[in-house]
Order: sequence, then structure tokens, then C-alpha cells
Amino acid sequence: MDKFALSAAFVKTSLPLASLKLCEVRLQADVRWPWIVLIPRKAGVREVEHLPAPLRALLMEEITAAGVAVRAVGSALGRPVEKLNIGLLGNVTPQLHAHVVGRRQDDPAWPGPVWGVGEAQAYAAHDLDLAIQAAQNALDLFTAPRETRRG
Amino acid sequence: MDKFALSAAFVKTSLPLASLKLCEVRLQADVRWPWIVLIPRKAGVREVEHLPAPLRALLMEEITAAGVAVRAVGSALGRPVEKLNIGLLGNVTPQLHAHVVGRRQDDPAWPGPVWGVGEAQAYAAHDLDLAIQAAQNALDLFTAPRETRRG
Repeated sequence: MDKFALSAAFVKTSLPLASLKLCEVRLQADVRWPWIVLIPRKAGVREVEHLPAPLRALLMEEITAAGVAVRAVGSALGRPVEKLNIGLLGNVTPQLHAHVVGRRQDDPAWPGPVWGVGEAQAYAAHDLDLAIQAAQNALDLFTAPRETRRG
Repeated sequence: MDKFALSAAFVKTSLPLASLKLCEVRLQADVRWPWIVLIPRKAGVREVEHLPAPLRALLMEEITAAGVAVRAVGSALGRPVEKLNIGLLGNVTPQLHAHVVGRRQDDPAWPGPVWGVGEAQAYAAHDLDLAIQAAQNALDLFTAPRETRRG
């Protein structure tokens, strides 16, 4: 059984936010959209169907939490999210991952999908701090009740 | 509380396959890709976060079953699926829905997403029969064990 290792593609294009129960959660390094990527820490998994049902349910919960975090990032940057987009594609990077992207009618790809559109645009340092803090605060609220239950 | 009604957009672009526990399951009327759309029968729901957690888990299970059906459609048409793509966007049609699309390296949008690419291409009658039968057989296998458990 191979050990899980994050694909180099994610290291290159995103920054770590949190390790949830199932997934590594990362901020896409592209200021055009508030955008989080979740990667289940399971070696060799390429499709949702490769996860057992309880982990599929957990993935859905972590995707939902990432949606809250994406909304928080959009608001922190002064561009509140109008619609969430969720995508699990993996045509380019086969390691199973989910995208959660905050969309607005004034964004550069609306109403089309964001994947493959133009070039990523780097965050300014201050905006990146704001985005990471907003996302981590939102993700903390998701994990906090579990911590409490354990205590 | 409004009653659920299928958005006219789905009636126009897809054909009914099955009513699962949560979702209406429909075949996208576009022979370019084996493609299933799932619409939860819940009025007013636009985002995954609007569903309670147990229904989110059920949605994930029905998406997974649709993936098996999409693979069956691809095989029935002589173009076995190499990768599943799952998308919940709703930028154009706001009623919550999930796309499950079978992808191949020789398909007309690979490796980009399928949404918004070109024009839908109608099924020939014989291929449509094959596709619907393959999808329904696969979805029957998903629902059958539940029926048995009830009996």
C-alpha cells in the first residue's frame, strides 16, 4: 500500500490552509476567485467511487465547510460570493481532489467554468494574509465542535 | 413552502432515466459525452449547503451511482469512460443539480471542462435506446439492494 503524498501540482499552485479529518485543504494561489482545493489523504484514489461511502460522506461535509470558507474569503476581499461552484475533474492532475470556487456575475469567466481560463493572478501579500485568515477562521468553526466533543 | 418542480432547462436538454430517493436522474441529450444530471427534489435549493447533512450524503451516493451509469453508457456506445467529471455549478440554471460526465482523452473538450463547449449533438435513435437502457440497468443495480432490504 503506497503512502499518501500530495501531488506536486497542488504544491505549485496552492497554499496550505488546514488538515481536516479526510482532506488537505489549500487556497488556490489565484486572486481572480476565492478558491479552495481539497485533497483526500488516501493514496492511489482517483475517483469518488474509490472511497468507501462513509468517506464519501465526509468528503461532502468537508466540501461544504470549504464553501463556507470560500464565502469568507470573498467577503474579506470585498467581493462577496454569489454562487458556489464545486468540481471534481482530475483530467490534468489525477490525484482525487475537489475544487470549491466562489463565483460572481462580474468575475472573468462568468457564467462559464473557471478551469483552464486564462492565467492565475498572484495575490498581493496583504490580500493573501486576509484570505488565509478568513479561510482558516471559517474552517476552525467547522472543526471546533468535534474538538469539543472529544474533550 | 413551495412545491418542487423541475426547471424547464432540464426538461429541454435532458431525458428522464430514474427517480432515486433524493434526485431526478436524467440523461443529457448530447451524444458527445455520456452525461447524467441529478436534480434533488427539494424546492428552493440552490447550493449543497442548503441541504441537511444526511441529504448531502445521499446526494453523494446518488452521484456515485450516476458515475457507474455514465460508465455503462460509455461502454454501450463503444467509448469506455476513462475519467469521471463531477460538477455542481448552477451559474446558468440555479436549481441545485449535479453533472456526472464521462471523459476520454479523445473527446472534443479534453482535458478542459465540458460546460459551455460548442453545441449539443443529438443522439441517433438507436444510440439513445442503448444509452438509456445501459444507464437504467446500472441505476437499477444501485436501487435494488434497498428494495430487497425493505422486503
